[in-house]
Amino acid sequence: MNPQVGIIMGSDSDLPVMKEAALVLEEFGITFEITIVSAHRTPERMFNYAREAAERGIEVIIAGAGGAAHLPGMVASITHLPVIGVPVKTSSLSGIDSLFSIVQMPRGVPVATVAINNARNAGLLAVRILSIKYPKLQEKLKEYQESMREKVEEKAALLEQLGYEGYLDSVLSSHKQKLD
Amino acid sequence: MNPQVGIIMGSDSDLPVMKEAALVLEEFGITFEITIVSAHRTPERMFNYAREAAERGIEVIIAGAGGAAHLPGMVASITHLPVIGVPVKTSSLSGIDSLFSIVQMPRGVPVATVAINNARNAGLLAVRILSIKYPKLQEKLKEYQESMREKVEEKAALLEQLGYEGYLDSVLSSHKQKLD
Amino acid sequence: MNPQVGIIMGSDSDLPVMKEAALVLEEFGITFEITIVSAHRTPERMFNYAREAAERGIEVIIAGAGGAAHLPGMVASITHLPVIGVPVKTSSLSGIDSLFSIVQMPRGVPVATVAINNARNAGLLAVRILSIKYPKLQEKLKEYQESMREKVEEKAALLEQLGYEGYLDSVLSSHKQKLD
Amino acid sequence: MNPQVGIIMGSDSDLPVMKEAALVLEEFGITFEITIVSAHRTPERMFNYAREAAERGIEVIIAGAGGAAHLPGMVASITHLPVIGVPVKTSSLSGIDSLFSIVQMPRGVPVATVAINNARNAGLLAVRILSIKYPKLQEKLKEYQESMREKVEEKAALLEQLGYEGYLDSVLSSHKQKLD
Amino acid sequence: MNPQVGIIMGSDSDLPVMKEAALVLEEFGITFEITIVSAHRTPERMFNYAREAAERGIEVIIAGAGGAAHLPGMVASITHLPVIGVPVKTSSLSGIDSLFSIVQMPRGVPVATVAINNARNAGLLAVRILSIKYPKLQEKLKEYQESMREKVEEKAALLEQLGYEGYLDSVLSSHKQKLD
Amino acid sequence: MNPQVGIIMGSDSDLPVMKEAALVLEEFGITFEITIVSAHRTPERMFNYAREAAERGIEVIIAGAGGAAHLPGMVASITHLPVIGVPVKTSSLSGIDSLFSIVQMPRGVPVATVAINNARNAGLLAVRILSIKYPKLQEKLKEYQESMREKVEEKAALLEQLGYEGYLDSVLSSHKQKLD
Amino acid sequence: MNPQVGIIMGSDSDLPVMKEAALVLEEFGITFEITIVSAHRTPERMFNYAREAAERGIEVIIAGAGGAAHLPGMVASITHLPVIGVPVKTSSLSGIDSLFSIVQMPRGVPVATVAINNARNAGLLAVRILSIKYPKLQEKLKEYQESMREKVEEKAALLEQLGYEGYLDSVLSSHKQKLD
Amino acid sequence: MNPQVGIIMGSDSDLPVMKEAALVLEEFGITFEITIVSAHRTPERMFNYAREAAERGIEVIIAGAGGAAHLPGMVASITHLPVIGVPVKTSSLSGIDSLFSIVQMPRGVPVATVAINNARNAGLLAVRILSIKYPKLQEKLKEYQESMREKVEEKAALLEQLGYEGYLDSVLSSHKQKLD
Repeated sequence: MNPQVGIIMGSDSDLPVMKEAALVLEEFGITFEITIVSAHRTPERMFNYAREAAERGIEVIIAGAGGAAHLPGMVASITHLPVIGVPVKTSSLSGIDSLFSIVQMPRGVPVATVAINNARNAGLLAVRILSIKYPKLQEKLKEYQESMREKVEEKAALLEQLGYEGYLDSVLSSHKQKLD
Repeated sequence: MNPQVGIIMGSDSDLPVMKEAALVLEEFGITFEITIVSAHRTPERMFNYAREAAERGIEVIIAGAGGAAHLPGMVASITHLPVIGVPVKTSSLSGIDSLFSIVQMPRGVPVATVAINNARNAGLLAVRILSIKYPKLQEKLKEYQESMREKVEEKAALLEQLGYEGYLDSVLSSHKQKLD
Repeated sequence: MNPQVGIIMGSDSDLPVMKEAALVLEEFGITFEITIVSAHRTPERMFNYAREAAERGIEVIIAGAGGAAHLPGMVASITHLPVIGVPVKTSSLSGIDSLFSIVQMPRGVPVATVAINNARNAGLLAVRILSIKYPKLQEKLKEYQESMREKVEEKAALLEQLGYEGYLDSVLSSHKQKLD
Repeated sequence: MNPQVGIIMGSDSDLPVMKEAALVLEEFGITFEITIVSAHRTPERMFNYAREAAERGIEVIIAGAGGAAHLPGMVASITHLPVIGVPVKTSSLSGIDSLFSIVQMPRGVPVATVAINNARNAGLLAVRILSIKYPKLQEKLKEYQESMREKVEEKAALLEQLGYEGYLDSVLSSHKQKLD
Repeated sequence: MNPQVGIIMGSDSDLPVMKEAALVLEEFGITFEITIVSAHRTPERMFNYAREAAERGIEVIIAGAGGAAHLPGMVASITHLPVIGVPVKTSSLSGIDSLFSIVQMPRGVPVATVAINNARNAGLLAVRILSIKYPKLQEKLKEYQESMREKVEEKAALLEQLGYEGYLDSVLSSHKQKLD
Repeated sequence: MNPQVGIIMGSDSDLPVMKEAALVLEEFGITFEITIVSAHRTPERMFNYAREAAERGIEVIIAGAGGAAHLPGMVASITHLPVIGVPVKTSSLSGIDSLFSIVQMPRGVPVATVAINNARNAGLLAVRILSIKYPKLQEKLKEYQESMREKVEEKAALLEQLGYEGYLDSVLSSHKQKLD
Repeated sequence: MNPQVGIIMGSDSDLPVMKEAALVLEEFGITFEITIVSAHRTPERMFNYAREAAERGIEVIIAGAGGAAHLPGMVASITHLPVIGVPVKTSSLSGIDSLFSIVQMPRGVPVATVAINNARNAGLLAVRILSIKYPKLQEKLKEYQESMREKVEEKAALLEQLGYEGYLDSVLSSHKQKLD
Repeated sequence: MNPQVGIIMGSDSDLPVMKEAALVLEEFGITFEITIVSAHRTPERMFNYAREAAERGIEVIIAGAGGAAHLPGMVASITHLPVIGVPVKTSSLSGIDSLFSIVQMPRGVPVATVAINNARNAGLLAVRILSIKYPKLQEKLKEYQESMREKVEEKAALLEQLGYEGYLDSVLSSHKQKLD
């Protein structure tokens, strides 16, 4: 089955960030492909990827990159598909360079930019976009929003019940334990 | 005929910026509505707008705001439609406050952010999004990209022919004359 | 006994920061409630919380949030109570996104913003605000300021007595030992 | 009749900004005084002002300053009254220096900071704070919020009726005419 | 005669900035071509330009662009020629977006970045680069540096002779007169 | 009579800013020289100036520069005199580039940095420094501080007398009239 | 023997940074005192310190503070002594808040600002300032500059001899060993 | 054999960053020298280095420095060789101070600036510059670009084969293992 979404990134070091987009699409049952396409190290590959994506049945492209992040904007200039850009955090400028390089596109070529490192939202934005055409996704989106609501309300109820000290001691410290 | 796109803004002072989104949608023959919805001065109106948009047939929302720009994110948290955010330039922080307030959304609620004051790209992003469902728009998008290409190439040819001094004297100065 | 102050935050991950506000209110004998209210994941809960707070006897609201931090401003737009905003530090932009999202409110809807992560000052600001109505708090505030003064002067005396090397060796290193 | 609010500013060049706070207080029928107190050019005057404000019946202080803006924080360190800080826009750093100097107060001494140049919100915050003690102000605040809502809705209705081009032509251009 | 330097820019609105590079090259007797190549509006033209530049005898490329400025980096990823990037000032972010988009290139693809809007230095850098191969340029560069030195020393002598008030009155005001 | 203070600047375009330092020194009766010394266009002149300043009797150097502002730091690395740096405002980065280039000196070579464009304070800092050796200046400094205090207090008295509307109408508008 | 330099800081947590100023003064044989003076927690102590410093024989004040760092500027507004400000690095804004709060002083009250956390340079600046009155310090300053030069040249010679790999292996790794 | 490239840095603490430039030059068979030249601690050494470099056969200079990074710009003002500047990351301002100090050079004296800490690109830029004169380097540059392309395509193939989870588990975790 053809992938509906193409997830691309400038380097495999972006994968720990970008995998969140893949996880969301799996949750929503959307087919996708995920690969590495570097604007600067494989410019021809990027050109071909962007030019052929629509013909191959891709409907949305998610592109992540860091620093002088040209991948999302260049892909958007070649394809007519909606392109979602994920600014990846960088070690010296914390991703503000990635953000400016992705979001400040000139008139004529839009990139749908999400928060720094927030590939999960890139995935969710792809779902929202696809849901216009595929109405079943609308129900799933409402359920997703509902489940977010429920999780917050459960935590709120627990915090109100335990008090802030109890919550910090039991819930957050056990959570921290898992991380250690 | 029902509007497909809802263009909203926090204040009528954003209209000179946001009208560019309307102009693009007209060029592409997409129906839209345009109105004022302030997250801070009309919170209930915002709630109702966001909650009812999908039912009213709206398929994409474009929301512009400046400063502590909460409109795009709040609307995105209530609806499941794709929401495009336009950070409007501000007098003291040049729109960097608007940009951060719109793009840095937490996991779970995406806003498709475009460049500061670039409502034209918000309109074009809406077209790209809608083109997934309405294939005729794909042809128009290709034509649009083609016409951008042609305009640049015409200017390039003129610049190469006139030389930079000639181009500055004739083309840019006559352009400036119109503005005066 | 009804809570006088409502402390809310966008996520339970903000609790280690926001608990400082609770600690201050306890020191001053002010009743409070503390819970999770997410502008983006529980918008209706936020609406209801803000709309009912005054009727429920709440007199001041302290709201903490990070990133595109809309909670304080949205609550302030619905209630007429004074709202204190705490910008929570974020991993990529260090809380400058939170700060701009909270402080740069448009004319008409003020949020009393404190320093990034400084929930202790949010608590103290609530005390100062309440002290207008409850004069006993004024005495306590003077004592608090007095005790801050004394602690600094004790440290200053110790530093003058031990010299900077002695102070670094004994006081600061023993302090560091406790942290290890 | 004693003033309830003291509006102070570091220089008379801040008056065009700070007068907005005065206008709001007049609208709400709150007595106030307005004067110049410079932390750097009149440190003793500042000390005395801050030390005597509470005894003189002042209940809230609004302090505006620009650049290395020490006035709000210093006043807050001397008085126990709630202090609202207005960062005034500066020519080289656009008020980001004023903002950081006012909002980033250390633990123990809070300043309720509003947006750059937004003295109107400082006035409104003072009203919200005073309304805890003076319940009549609560009704006025609700009316103020209501009137803001109405004005937005009137403009929205007009925009929907005239269309964006009509609105730009008639409403915004006539507004611009007045300014010329 | 074949051009040695290719000056390209993303839009003809960059020409008033980029013409300074052309002026410098003329001063040094270096042949050049100047044209418009937009990474986003003419991606294929950009590809072809970058791929063929070396074969056409171009030895250095100067590329200017603003905002999400991808032109210099993309050209550098396709050619092996040295590419000099000129970040063009933008209206909202003053060119800091252009600077980050041009200078923060990933390992493997360098862009020689100069100051915001400083196309004159881009031209001079091209001359320095070419002077390695064409030693006559070295003499011209030394003369250029010498003449800069002389101009400063003449002004310094005049300032010392007239005093600062005299200099302001006569030299700077006459200069200002010319601009009026 | 030998100059005690050397005022230097990177370009004569800095003179409208730097003349404020000269004015202050004249007010305090301190002899000075003022000239142009460019780190980048006259590096040898800069070297010689810095190396000979102390021998020529100069006791404090004030150096102003903009952009990549190397003059103050380089002079400080060659002389052992105290060097005061004035970051001059720039068109694209508003002087934040000048500020960082001047203030962020490495360990071993200090530059006494003042606010962006604030050459008046550079002059006053020179006076404070010289007052250690020349006690008469201490009295003048106290008088200067006293006169600043008086001017603020006079304005404050006038504002309290006229009210903010009266003050804006009479004082500030007449001031504006002078500027027109 | 009376101290010539007063080193003050807003909190004992600044001592690990500020002790570098003390170390430099000891190297140069300058007497000093070092203590804690908080603008916000001990405003009266600060006032008295600043007012009495000159009478007590202090000739230069070094003041370090972080965040909304008001100590250096406030002290400078009360005393006529030269005041050197050290912006202490902060956890959320890395000391850029401290820097702006210290350096952006208004006309009339200068603070000699050094780099973030660079208390060593504050000490050296105090030495340069004092050397105007105490010529023996001039010789010591020249020796200090000479010894810095020698250390760099020794390292350079070693690097040239060992090659960069050898230097990294032997010198830098042994240095790292000491730190472990 | 004479070195073609001179790599200099302000301090031996920059060596772990700057060695990347050396590694690249070795890969391309270009002779180089590497040493320490501090603008601030060895100004005369810097002057001599810059003045003699061309005569000694050096054709390109790579200069790295951090903070108020004056080395690249000062060297460029003395020599007529092309100078490449590497902004070294700093602890408080992350290298944005280094970047501004290096890139924002005034008209007349260009520095070819690369990304923060990206000395590898400085080396590659030197190769591109030298390749104009030494055509053999052009082939090597094409091979280098080809090998970058191949490495990305191999990784892309592996990612497409293993899937993102498999790739994260095997490739990235084994990579992480090596680092531990």
